[in-house]
Amino acid sequence: MAAESQNLLSNIRVVLCRPSHPGNIGAAARAMKTMGLSQLYLVSPKKFPHEDAEAMASGAVDVLASAQVCASLEEALAGCVLAIGSSTRQRDLQTALLTPAEAAGQALAEAQSGCVAMVFGNETFGLSKEELACCQALMTIPANPEYSSLNLGAAVQVMAYELRRTALNETFAQPELDAADLAEVERFYAHLETALIRIGFLNPASPKRLMPKLRRLFSRTRLQREEINILRGMLSAMESGKNGEH
Amino acid sequence: MAAESQNLLSNIRVVLCRPSHPGNIGAAARAMKTMGLSQLYLVSPKKFPHEDAEAMASGAVDVLASAQVCASLEEALAGCVLAIGSSTRQRDLQTALLTPAEAAGQALAEAQSGCVAMVFGNETFGLSKEELACCQALMTIPANPEYSSLNLGAAVQVMAYELRRTALNETFAQPELDAADLAEVERFYAHLETALIRIGFLNPASPKRLMPKLRRLFSRTRLQREEINILRGMLSAMESGKNGEH
Repeated sequence: MAAESQNLLSNIRVVLCRPSHPGNIGAAARAMKTMGLSQLYLVSPKKFPHEDAEAMASGAVDVLASAQVCASLEEALAGCVLAIGSSTRQRDLQTALLTPAEAAGQALAEAQSGCVAMVFGNETFGLSKEELACCQALMTIPANPEYSSLNLGAAVQVMAYELRRTALNETFAQPELDAADLAEVERFYAHLETALIRIGFLNPASPKRLMPKLRRLFSRTRLQREEINILRGMLSAMESGKNGEH
Repeated sequence: MAAESQNLLSNIRVVLCRPSHPGNIGAAARAMKTMGLSQLYLVSPKKFPHEDAEAMASGAVDVLASAQVCASLEEALAGCVLAIGSSTRQRDLQTALLTPAEAAGQALAEAQSGCVAMVFGNETFGLSKEELACCQALMTIPANPEYSSLNLGAAVQVMAYELRRTALNETFAQPELDAADLAEVERFYAHLETALIRIGFLNPASPKRLMPKLRRLFSRTRLQREEINILRGMLSAMESGKNGEH
């Protein structure tokens, strides 16, 4: 395997949101290592560390040992330029569902410029609306419509396999986008929310679905660094204006 | 999914040889069902049926319930026209290692004319030499050379995923070959062995590696029905000659 392909895979982060069964965390770690992935992030795991995770990880306990435990998905995505969520069903979102091969191609292209997260939801409930809103793209594994429920470790295995297969077989054009770090994007959302409250457009006592809708809009466009700067400048100006400083 | 693709997948048989852990049998059943496969064959499973298998199968207990338990791989391959073995390492066999995508293409092309077996070995030891000799092709999942040990259920998941992906995306030319049922091929080998003993070419007290080497030769060529008839006719004539009847 070319060093370049290996470098791309080392920029892929697997994020498991609220996993219930520690055995699945171990299975995911093993699946990752067999395909050359190493960055495991766990958002609020129910039980971790746990002996079941170690047993299922087998020779991949090093991946478990270096796993990062986070309190929120936003925290797990800090430092990433793209997050692709895994969904088992077509949802009422205006987001196209990528195949694993398409998701792998997009992830590896972007991994040339920074970390890319593949995000998996809870075993029973999948990704929550809030978690989905943190993802800029969605991926689904084409499955038997009569029984589409892949085990979490098996889903990670399929996605990791596609990433390695794609890394070995394809070359990637440099992405045109100078994508913003998702932590910067989160700071922009926080700033946006504060500013909208300040100008009286968002009522914190009755926020409705305003922020999720705005997140979805900006997720689709994939914000660039420069655009974040422009937007935050606008927000600051808006807030100042409201304070009568302009 | 087109009915035709579904028919091809229903002709794919997953054969697990001597699985040690019943949980892996259940995981394989679940992996199969998510991808539309249903024919599970178990050769000398250590523990089956078992509650761990049921727990890991989740919504695929029907696949477990209809699983066929066999005493030998030969028995599990009866009715198949092709068996593709899974190998985790390059062995000293003169057989090319297919990628999962290549194996899926070949399996589905042949599945138009009969059942095709995807054969997986024991968790620790893989397929034995005898088991490998029953396979006409070998497949390996490209993995991290520093840690290539996929869990058995995960390996079945990857292969089943590739089969479904390929069935959905490709059309297959009718295979030119009128391949013999592997049970007929086994009867030919038994006949060959008897005949070679009869004519004094094979010493049953010191058989060496003669039969495995002959098996390998014929496995590479993929015997057709008509060829089996010709060869067995030759063997009968040879035996008759030895008996002085000619």
